[in-house]
Amino acid sequence: MMSSASMISRDACVARDAADPLRGLRDRFMIPEGLIYLDGNSLGPMPRAAASALNRTIEQEWGHDLIRSWNSAGWFDMPVRLGDRVGALLGAVPGQTLVCDTTSINLYKAVHAAIGLRPGRDVVVAEDESFPTDLYIVEGAMKSAGRPMTRRLIGTDGPSINALLDETVAVAVLSHVNYRTGALLDMATITKQLHDAGALVVWDLCHSIGVVEIAFDLHAVDFAVGCTYKYLNGGPGSPAFISVAKAHQAAARHPLSGWWGHAAPFAFDRDFRPDEGIKRFLCGTQPIISLRGVDVALDAMEGVEVAALRQKSLALTELFIARVTALLPGLDIVTPRQPSLRGSQVAISFDKGYAVVQAMIEHGVIGDFRAPDIMRFGFAPLYIRFQDVWDAADILAGCINAEVWRDPRFNRYLDVT
Amino acid sequence: MMSSASMISRDACVARDAADPLRGLRDRFMIPEGLIYLDGNSLGPMPRAAASALNRTIEQEWGHDLIRSWNSAGWFDMPVRLGDRVGALLGAVPGQTLVCDTTSINLYKAVHAAIGLRPGRDVVVAEDESFPTDLYIVEGAMKSAGRPMTRRLIGTDGPSINALLDETVAVAVLSHVNYRTGALLDMATITKQLHDAGALVVWDLCHSIGVVEIAFDLHAVDFAVGCTYKYLNGGPGSPAFISVAKAHQAAARHPLSGWWGHAAPFAFDRDFRPDEGIKRFLCGTQPIISLRGVDVALDAMEGVEVAALRQKSLALTELFIARVTALLPGLDIVTPRQPSLRGSQVAISFDKGYAVVQAMIEHGVIGDFRAPDIMRFGFAPLYIRFQDVWDAADILAGCINAEVWRDPRFNRYLDVT
Repeated sequence: MMSSASMISRDACVARDAADPLRGLRDRFMIPEGLIYLDGNSLGPMPRAAASALNRTIEQEWGHDLIRSWNSAGWFDMPVRLGDRVGALLGAVPGQTLVCDTTSINLYKAVHAAIGLRPGRDVVVAEDESFPTDLYIVEGAMKSAGRPMTRRLIGTDGPSINALLDETVAVAVLSHVNYRTGALLDMATITKQLHDAGALVVWDLCHSIGVVEIAFDLHAVDFAVGCTYKYLNGGPGSPAFISVAKAHQAAARHPLSGWWGHAAPFAFDRDFRPDEGIKRFLCGTQPIISLRGVDVALDAMEGVEVAALRQKSLALTELFIARVTALLPGLDIVTPRQPSLRGSQVAISFDKGYAVVQAMIEHGVIGDFRAPDIMRFGFAPLYIRFQDVWDAADILAGCINAEVWRDPRFNRYLDVT
Repeated sequence: MMSSASMISRDACVARDAADPLRGLRDRFMIPEGLIYLDGNSLGPMPRAAASALNRTIEQEWGHDLIRSWNSAGWFDMPVRLGDRVGALLGAVPGQTLVCDTTSINLYKAVHAAIGLRPGRDVVVAEDESFPTDLYIVEGAMKSAGRPMTRRLIGTDGPSINALLDETVAVAVLSHVNYRTGALLDMATITKQLHDAGALVVWDLCHSIGVVEIAFDLHAVDFAVGCTYKYLNGGPGSPAFISVAKAHQAAARHPLSGWWGHAAPFAFDRDFRPDEGIKRFLCGTQPIISLRGVDVALDAMEGVEVAALRQKSLALTELFIARVTALLPGLDIVTPRQPSLRGSQVAISFDKGYAVVQAMIEHGVIGDFRAPDIMRFGFAPLYIRFQDVWDAADILAGCINAEVWRDPRFNRYLDVT
């Protein structure tokens, strides 16, 4: 890990980029000229190969080969084949991961299955500060569990997970990286604590897949879900993934028992008999064109080690934190300074944050804002350069020093709801 | 409706095509040269406008505009906007239909909600011969309903729906057109019977949307679901639709309570509070590129009345039935002859059907086969011509008369499971 002292000028950043062993990866992505895109934690950019690959799926596979492509182009097998590719990024051996449906729906399947695997326990632990859909889906899974369940919340300033664990806890749903603060949880330790308490875990990997090393098998993780459109760059709303440990598959059940999850989907049996393996977590027909986007995006990561991405990611966020701290010493950076405690984004709490993010966009830096006061900047090591970090920090400082929130163009808070 | 006597030659069919007021629509679709595509009831062909429209979504909206397209390209609003467009095809006023997720998942939401709306009743009626996922999803919805539920099956040779209705029936799940036989149910009468018995209905419109006139509002239908990749031509696995009558929306609940169904998805509230209207049936982030396929496909139907499509569809199936009957008098056509009782496909029961369908493909006619013995031929009025029907019947007869199942190339039954 480089120290911030080694990066005391923009020229030093440019030099660092030139020496970066990952520098060639940026060319695999379409980054509009002059744009510093720090929102890959929300929607990753388009792999350059995507347009022609998707066009082949559209014009050749759909347009010309039509129905035959379900077999000849491997459409049927995509959830499993892509699942194994995503599984490799999270340390899961093949046969444990699918790409299908949405994160919310996969979370529902996982939480429902986990509750079913712990019949004597009636508590689901979740996080007060998780992305809200995780809390909402936990509500839905508890209501449809078939027995009364209660929810216990880990709070930022409230109880820790350890304080909540006892013999009544069936499962905990945890975000590996917090979507607001960028804080990273210790998957190894927490998974072990849960297992020691007899509970299962569902990890939400939306903000860590592709940028943080994950050892699903090594830590004996039970379930994981996540999206493919952030650091995996699968395209807008591309289907999500779900991983289920081999050890749980035979007993794991969920009520979204559609035909793709049947042991013999084309036998057209009258009664549902789940596939013996991971495919029991499939439900209905998948959106093939959007799935192909995931395929192409995984191609763009071919030959890249997650460890190398993680190392560069930490260097980028470290530089950003150091530069912002130097330029704006009083600013409240809520992302942990300690590398082992953060993901790949830097979050800053600032009451005029909305206006600042809008003004930065005018200056060619795209970050985003999360109510009530969080500015988020994602640093995707596949295509963000050290010089981008330097420039983004300068532009952030410029906007704050210019008090851009006094400009009526930026101070309208647009209610996107 | 023309009589078959008016179509006694191929020349007459060609003339009929020339006079067809819908003849221009075929040019809106990519139909490979020399192919007679009678499998649009499984996967519709590509609208010619799809390649460039999807490419714009990929290269401009995703590639260039990136995260901003959630607002600027209307990505967020697509499920509602496309839902209203599909709603127009099924006679539902705006605000009652969404395009999202899969048919199986939408069916789960609908059945779960219907059970919840009839708390004192513990029976779900389904069809023995429905597409199996409908039965499987009914199983899943019953298990997660929060109270014991039982299933009663309408059988082809067993009890009719009337025989099954009593004060214990909460909801019936019915296919408007049977996927195997092509038989069409009387939506008006059956919906009224169910309502008279105090029950709700969920209509599966997969095989009728776009080719049969549907009057969702007029018949006070409660719920409907269906796919967009058959007669709507939205592309492989394109997202499905769900319609929920306005009258039920405020009270209808389902457990797939993801953030897109929240009343204020960007307020990041801790607790789930469903949208007041149809959006409570959304769950997670939708596959935008595949959704755009639905948009383009609906454009290709712009200005076309479903009534005109229905009229031509019946003329096509009538001609096929008449020609096949003339050429092969003993063949067992299982699709009803009476126009009001059939959808847009013709199904033939034939024990060597698998080999015949394979041989027909070699002769440029794509139909499909459903175990154990059904050959299915879909007649999509947007692009199928009377001359295609004539030729397809000739080729079918030729294959059967040549006993193609004696040819080892065709007699291998490929187990696609």
